[in-house]
Amino acid sequence: MESGSQIREENYAADICSIKEAEARINPFIHKTPILSSESLNALSGRRLSFKCELFQKGGAFKFRGACNAVFSLDDDQATKGVVTHSSGNHAAALALAANLRGVPAYIVIPKNAPKCKVENVTRYGGQIIWSEATMQSRESTAAKVLEETGAVLLHPYNDRRIISGQGTIALELLEQAPQIDTIIVPISGGGLISGVALAAKSINPAILVLAAEPTGANDAALSKAAGKRIILPQTNTIADGLRAFLGDLTWPVVRDLVDDVVTVEDKEIIEAMRLCYEILKVAVEPSGAIGLAAVLSNSFRNSPAWKSCSHIGIILSGGNVDLGVLWDSFKK
Amino acid sequence: MESGSQIREENYAADICSIKEAEARINPFIHKTPILSSESLNALSGRRLSFKCELFQKGGAFKFRGACNAVFSLDDDQATKGVVTHSSGNHAAALALAANLRGVPAYIVIPKNAPKCKVENVTRYGGQIIWSEATMQSRESTAAKVLEETGAVLLHPYNDRRIISGQGTIALELLEQAPQIDTIIVPISGGGLISGVALAAKSINPAILVLAAEPTGANDAALSKAAGKRIILPQTNTIADGLRAFLGDLTWPVVRDLVDDVVTVEDKEIIEAMRLCYEILKVAVEPSGAIGLAAVLSNSFRNSPAWKSCSHIGIILSGGNVDLGVLWDSFKK
Repeated sequence: MESGSQIREENYAADICSIKEAEARINPFIHKTPILSSESLNALSGRRLSFKCELFQKGGAFKFRGACNAVFSLDDDQATKGVVTHSSGNHAAALALAANLRGVPAYIVIPKNAPKCKVENVTRYGGQIIWSEATMQSRESTAAKVLEETGAVLLHPYNDRRIISGQGTIALELLEQAPQIDTIIVPISGGGLISGVALAAKSINPAILVLAAEPTGANDAALSKAAGKRIILPQTNTIADGLRAFLGDLTWPVVRDLVDDVVTVEDKEIIEAMRLCYEILKVAVEPSGAIGLAAVLSNSFRNSPAWKSCSHIGIILSGGNVDLGVLWDSFKK
Repeated sequence: MESGSQIREENYAADICSIKEAEARINPFIHKTPILSSESLNALSGRRLSFKCELFQKGGAFKFRGACNAVFSLDDDQATKGVVTHSSGNHAAALALAANLRGVPAYIVIPKNAPKCKVENVTRYGGQIIWSEATMQSRESTAAKVLEETGAVLLHPYNDRRIISGQGTIALELLEQAPQIDTIIVPISGGGLISGVALAAKSINPAILVLAAEPTGANDAALSKAAGKRIILPQTNTIADGLRAFLGDLTWPVVRDLVDDVVTVEDKEIIEAMRLCYEILKVAVEPSGAIGLAAVLSNSFRNSPAWKSCSHIGIILSGGNVDLGVLWDSFKK
C-alpha cells in the first residue's frame, strides 16, 4: 500500500513524548473508550472499520483529553485563578469538567448560537457561562475581558501544545486496541485532534495513513493543503457545528506535513452517516462525529485509486452531543 | 448486605455447565460487548452503575447469544431443513443472523404490529418473513403451518434450554468485566434472559442479587412471584414492545427461586430512562433495554430499605432497536 507522510525534523507543537506524558497525566481521569465494529458497515464500505468511540468520553467528546491535560499541566499558582476559554460547546464542557476535577473555576465564553445540549453540559460540570455574540471577534474580545478581570489562564480549544498532546492519546489507545489498522480518518476543524493523532500514530507506525474528513461548507483544510499555505474562509456553512473553526499556526504545520489527504463531504452525507451510526451502531453521534464514516462511504473516497489499499480503517467517532430533535429533523429532510 | 436467593437442588432448564458450553460455542461469532459508566448517572442514582451494552451485540440485542447457541447446537441433519420462530423482533433477527452464519434457512413468523426497524433487521440477515396477526394464537398457528411445510426446527424465543444457556453468557462476561458488582438488574419478559443471568451469576457468586425490571402494564412476573404460581395476563399495555411475553414453564421455576425481586416501573419512567441513555450515555436504547435504568431510578427502588445496600449495580442494556421517530415522539409527550 501507499506509505503515509513521515514525521520530519521540524519542531511541531507536540511530539510522541508530550503525548505519552499527557497519557500518564490524564489516565486517572478519562474513560478508555471502546472500539465498535459492524459487519453491516464493513459490507457497506467494502473495508474493515474500527470505530473509536470517543463519544463515550467524559463530557461526550474527545475534548476532555486535551482539556484535562492542559488543566492538570498548570502549576498550583497558575491554576488557582481558574481557566478561561471561548468555545461553541465540547471544549467548553470538557474544560469545565477538568477544572471541576482540579477544584478551580472555569469561565466559559459561549456564542449565543451554541447547541443547547452542549451548553447544558457546561452547566452540569459547574462552568461559569459568559455569553458572547456568534462572531469570532466577539468571542475573543469577551474572553479577553474575562481574562483581565479574573487573572485566569486562557486555554485555546486547539492551538495549544497541551491540548494537542491530550488529543493525541486517542491514537495511542486506538493502536493498542486495533494494532492492525492501516488508516485513520479524523474529523478536522481547528486541527487539534488530527495533529495529536497524526504525531502519535506516525511515530508508532510510520506507514500508517492519516486522512482528514471535512465538510465542503468549511473546507479550509482542503484548500490550505492544496495551496500549501493556511487559508482562512470568510464564512462557513455546515450542519457540523464542531467543524467550523480554522487551522491555527500550531496545527497547520502538522496538517501540512503529516495529514496524507483531506476527504470533503456534503452535509447530506454527514446526515446519512449519523443515521447509520444510530440505526446500526446504536450510538448517538453528533454531525462532526459522524463525518469519518461519511468520508469512508463517499464516492470520492470509494472511487479514488489512491485509497484503494486502505483495508482496515480506524474511524474516530469524536462526539455525541446532539439534540435529539435536531437529529430527527435532519433525518426527515 | 442482604444475601440473594440460592440455587437449590432442583433441575432447572439450564446450569453453569450448559452456559459455559454455550460460551465456548458462540464466542467465535458474538461481540464481547463493552461496559459503560457515567459519573452523572452514578450521582443521579446514588449508586455505582455498570451498563452492560448488549445493544451493541450483533443484531442490536442480547438475543443473538441464545439464537446462536441454539442454531449451532443442532446436528447437521436437524439444521439442514432450517429453523422457525415467531417473534416480534429481536429474537427473529438474531435467529435469521445465526441461521445465515450456519448457512441454513430461517423462517420467521412476524406479527403485523412489529416495529419497522426490527423487521428490517430480519430482512438484512436473510430471514424469510411470514406475516401473522398480532395475537399469540395467530403467531403459533402460522408457525405450526410453516413447521409442517418445511420440516424445520422450531426455536422458541425463551422457553428453551439452549436459548437460556446462550443468554446466560452475558453474566459470565459481566462478572469478568466488573467482578465487584453486588446486584444485577435485568429486563424480564418471557424470562429467558434473566433465567440465564441468574443461573450463571449465582453459580459464580451466590451472594449476588438478581432483580427483574418489568413494566406495570405487563407485570406477570411480579404477580406470579407474589402468587407463587405462574400467572398469564389477559392483555398487556406498555411501550416496551420486547417485554410483552409471559413466563414459560421452563423459565418460571428459575424466576420463582432465583430472582430476588421484581421492580415494576411506569412507561413514563422507561421513556425518561431512554432519554438519559441517549443524552448522557450516548446510546440508542429501546424501551425494553432502558427499563433497568428506569428501575434503579424509580422511587420504589430508591426508597426500599431492602435494596439500600445495593451499591454497585450491573444494568443490562438489552437492546437498541428503536425507530428514531418513535423515540422522539415519546420524548415530546
